[in-house]
Amino acid sequence: MKKIALSLTAGLAVAVGGIVLFQAPPQQAVAAETGKSGLSFLKYTADGKIVRPEPSMYRKWVYVGTPLTPNDMNDGEASFPEFHAVYMDPVSFAAFEKTGEYPNGTVLIKELSAVGTKKASSGNGYFMGEFTGLEITVKDSVRYKDEPGNWAYYSFGHKYPLKAEAAANGVASCNACHDRNRSAKENLSKDWVFEQYYPVLSAARANLKK
Amino acid sequence: MKKIALSLTAGLAVAVGGIVLFQAPPQQAVAAETGKSGLSFLKYTADGKIVRPEPSMYRKWVYVGTPLTPNDMNDGEASFPEFHAVYMDPVSFAAFEKTGEYPNGTVLIKELSAVGTKKASSGNGYFMGEFTGLEITVKDSVRYKDEPGNWAYYSFGHKYPLKAEAAANGVASCNACHDRNRSAKENLSKDWVFEQYYPVLSAARANLKK
Repeated sequence: MKKIALSLTAGLAVAVGGIVLFQAPPQQAVAAETGKSGLSFLKYTADGKIVRPEPSMYRKWVYVGTPLTPNDMNDGEASFPEFHAVYMDPVSFAAFEKTGEYPNGTVLIKELSAVGTKKASSGNGYFMGEFTGLEITVKDSVRYKDEPGNWAYYSFGHKYPLKAEAAANGVASCNACHDRNRSAKENLSKDWVFEQYYPVLSAARANLKK
Repeated sequence: MKKIALSLTAGLAVAVGGIVLFQAPPQQAVAAETGKSGLSFLKYTADGKIVRPEPSMYRKWVYVGTPLTPNDMNDGEASFPEFHAVYMDPVSFAAFEKTGEYPNGTVLIKELSAVGTKKASSGNGYFMGEFTGLEITVKDSVRYKDEPGNWAYYSFGHKYPLKAEAAANGVASCNACHDRNRSAKENLSKDWVFEQYYPVLSAARANLKK
């Protein structure tokens, strides 16, 4: 099932004068080079849920940034408590570095952790405590052909123990907000990613111009 | 020079009944397996400065956590402004996962970024802006044989453009504070690392027990 999806997204069949040509869209360039897609990191169940990936995998992916929404700045209960460390799969990051686009097959993982303390030797602030949650977003033009931007969003929960599998969230609960961010002037991607809060991605985009 | 340092730190010569044996300390296990040390990622000048490493290298290392000391919580000027994204070299992280010890040759890099905004769709909080600084700490029992714990600390500045090379800071300005943290009950490493604020390291240590 996954193999079929991969081969379908790897090229567009174009019939010219009776000869079928394959034209790879530009954002597929690196995936074609390596023969891999970010999708190769994920496992789906037969009914389309994502199996929670192991930390031993994604904690070695490319870290892109850490937004922080502390409970104490959000009436005691943030929507995403509290630190959000975000990783990007290395295959898609390599493509992004060359094109500035999120290729089909991009997987972003958000690992949530609690605020552990607000005071340390280095000063007052917010310091990470224990891991509390895990969420994933995936761009896949085949599996999510009906989702805006072909992005789908999954949550394994905000409290341990996390769910072993997760079904995609409805469009209104995640996609809509990411969709609205496309028109923010700070978001240079114009895609469904809150790129303006991820300096590793902003820096990679700035390097494209050189 | 570096080769000599590596071979000297790779084993301890022990004379037993006139026969010289080599006993590798446990934290050298993985470095010996891979034939590499975290030190292999660094370049030193002839006078002992570290050449500022390229983001293309350390931004693909293992991310361990992000303390935050915002200026607005530190009388307008934090000692380390403001987000501190910390990476560990992958060779030493692989050793740490097996032993729970920071092997000789461990390199930790702290990349600083400014607070870009305090409000986003996800709530009130702190969101990363531009990169502003870079610091490194290295554990090397040969080069830093006279430093407490064999750790030395370098800063390339807290404002771009960063310095191209940095000399080691004096013991009082960095090492002393890390040294005091060894006795904090939250710091399970008892080494010179503020491990309690890095959940990726805490989780790797917890996995040792399994």
